[in-house]
Amino acid sequence: MINPEAINIEDEKWMSQAIELAKEGLYTTHPNPRVGCVIVKDDHVVGRGFHFRAGEPHAEVHALRDAGENAVGATAYVTLEPCSHFGRTPPCCDALIKAGVSRVVAAMKDPNPEVAGRGLQRIEDAGISVVSGILEDEARDLNPGFLKRMETGLPYVRIKQAMSLDGRTAMASGESKWITGAEARSDVQRLRAMSDAIITGVESIIHDDSSLTLRADELGLKSDLAKEVVKHQPLRLVLDTQLRIPESAKILTLPGETIVVCSDQADQAKKTQLEKAGVTVWTQMTGKHIQLAALLKQLAEERSINEVLVEAGAQLSTSFLEEKLVDECWTYIAPKLMGANARPLTTLPLESMNQAIPLTFEEVSPMGEDLRIISKPARSLG
Amino acid sequence: MINPEAINIEDEKWMSQAIELAKEGLYTTHPNPRVGCVIVKDDHVVGRGFHFRAGEPHAEVHALRDAGENAVGATAYVTLEPCSHFGRTPPCCDALIKAGVSRVVAAMKDPNPEVAGRGLQRIEDAGISVVSGILEDEARDLNPGFLKRMETGLPYVRIKQAMSLDGRTAMASGESKWITGAEARSDVQRLRAMSDAIITGVESIIHDDSSLTLRADELGLKSDLAKEVVKHQPLRLVLDTQLRIPESAKILTLPGETIVVCSDQADQAKKTQLEKAGVTVWTQMTGKHIQLAALLKQLAEERSINEVLVEAGAQLSTSFLEEKLVDECWTYIAPKLMGANARPLTTLPLESMNQAIPLTFEEVSPMGEDLRIISKPARSLG
Repeated sequence: MINPEAINIEDEKWMSQAIELAKEGLYTTHPNPRVGCVIVKDDHVVGRGFHFRAGEPHAEVHALRDAGENAVGATAYVTLEPCSHFGRTPPCCDALIKAGVSRVVAAMKDPNPEVAGRGLQRIEDAGISVVSGILEDEARDLNPGFLKRMETGLPYVRIKQAMSLDGRTAMASGESKWITGAEARSDVQRLRAMSDAIITGVESIIHDDSSLTLRADELGLKSDLAKEVVKHQPLRLVLDTQLRIPESAKILTLPGETIVVCSDQADQAKKTQLEKAGVTVWTQMTGKHIQLAALLKQLAEERSINEVLVEAGAQLSTSFLEEKLVDECWTYIAPKLMGANARPLTTLPLESMNQAIPLTFEEVSPMGEDLRIISKPARSLG
Repeated sequence: MINPEAINIEDEKWMSQAIELAKEGLYTTHPNPRVGCVIVKDDHVVGRGFHFRAGEPHAEVHALRDAGENAVGATAYVTLEPCSHFGRTPPCCDALIKAGVSRVVAAMKDPNPEVAGRGLQRIEDAGISVVSGILEDEARDLNPGFLKRMETGLPYVRIKQAMSLDGRTAMASGESKWITGAEARSDVQRLRAMSDAIITGVESIIHDDSSLTLRADELGLKSDLAKEVVKHQPLRLVLDTQLRIPESAKILTLPGETIVVCSDQADQAKKTQLEKAGVTVWTQMTGKHIQLAALLKQLAEERSINEVLVEAGAQLSTSFLEEKLVDECWTYIAPKLMGANARPLTTLPLESMNQAIPLTFEEVSPMGEDLRIISKPARSLG
């Protein structure tokens, strides 16, 4: 008799390899999920694949091609249920059936309503043994944004802030170059690359002429990958109630798209002028009130945005927190004290301890001389 | 031929055991250094000892007693040069000679001017083989305060602060119970127990009636040890320029000694009154200016204080930082955001990035739901 726990350990071993493969697409699959696949026969991996970029073959197709004839009678481990619909590529479940695999193990079902169990069903209907739910938590962690978008219609939102140990993001004058060191700044480049969209406030553009672009030489990735990653810059959004953005702002001309989001009371002439210059302008505010939840919904619906990075000053970051739209805070802490006159991390106007926003610390990592703390708001919608 | 590197690895192995033993005295040896000793014969430990409390036998004596006859021809590993002077106990170098050990390995020389190489010299003069400098850095870490006091005449100073992720130590109202959780607060109890003296400002006494005592049940130590530890409460100092301390303050009546430090312009009647009530009052300030360096020197000289803990508000903590008297900052970070109106970590009045006080992060540890970061000011005198 075969010990079912033993099978599970075997399955987890191969699935963890598929998960590692999926991470190869960390910076490039948007708007698709990151997916990895290994084909195993007689206790050996005979095929490996991962999805790299939308429009290119899915993980299963790469792995089946790699396996060739060896796929017959093999087990396919895939980090997400194989697709059952024609998208930009034909359905992967058909490819697996056609290749003659005898067993398919999926880490999780695909919450995409176009799949949602139909992929595994079709495979099972073809007489192939099917298992789902192996290392599901780890597989979910590959695609927090894709899953949240499919499940709630909203993207996954990260706030990035860099501060001194005493919680200050800039001197009173606005001087903030550089709080953190080169390693932390390179980590922020990779965080941007993981993100499908980056949101900032117009103040950062006016004061720092921020570009928010990925720069191949600062990504800290192998140069071939870095070159591929920077080909698709994350969508940039500038929240700009009054349309105060200078037409000469770097962010409007650099590679990739920038959307300026203004209020319905913004100057229409300036709007027309920006649009004539080729800038997309969205009206997603009423008066002075930025409708952040609606903006996030629009990004998910119209642009298939999975993961959003908020790189903004204290005020805008605080608005996201107050509206409970934040899933993760990425806080880079530099080993210095900037003093009581320096700018605070948030503008939260709290008066008593029971109003404090509770977080949980998820991860602490050294980044050169700095630290990176990833925390989650305990009251997050995520 | 014997490989000298192999000898060194052997020596380091036994010395690291002696260092572990020395840590048994972490909370109790004051004003003596923490010292451990192992006696090794034929590749086996035949004796173990550590110093527990001033006036009681030194580590070597405990280890020799443990070894008995086996000490003859053995090697003694000791984390600090054996003493050569009569203190409260007779010199350990004589005990080692008398016991018939054939080799003595010390992690470091004793910087105490009463020893300073004379212990090892006396042993060598008796025809015993002597080595010094094995795991010296680790051995120094056992006694940062004792060594600093011997080498500079000043104690080792730690600042402890508890804050939210956004660097706030209390709400604007002063409300601060509790920022951190039970595990972090227990760690602070052990930090106090490591310290020979605790310094606070009178504001903490007036507003919170702080006691700054060790509490056996909160130390998180085995109950036998905890009972021993609380027998000797750290010396408490209240910095109180104007002698505003209420005579009813808890800190004045709890077990252990409290010294109130005032300015030469303080009310002499109040001073007399306090002294009549049995309180020691030091005048160590001129006008409003607290002479912290002089106070630390006095603590080292008159009270043999090795390790000082500053548990005070932002203003007093900042004064220690500004006067470059801080060796380590122990910052407990709670997973919450307390907002921009809450009280800051420091009162440093800095205006530009190049004035920021540089630190180095030495250690990050989870403490329940909180984090503890130990950092060192890069400009420390230490």
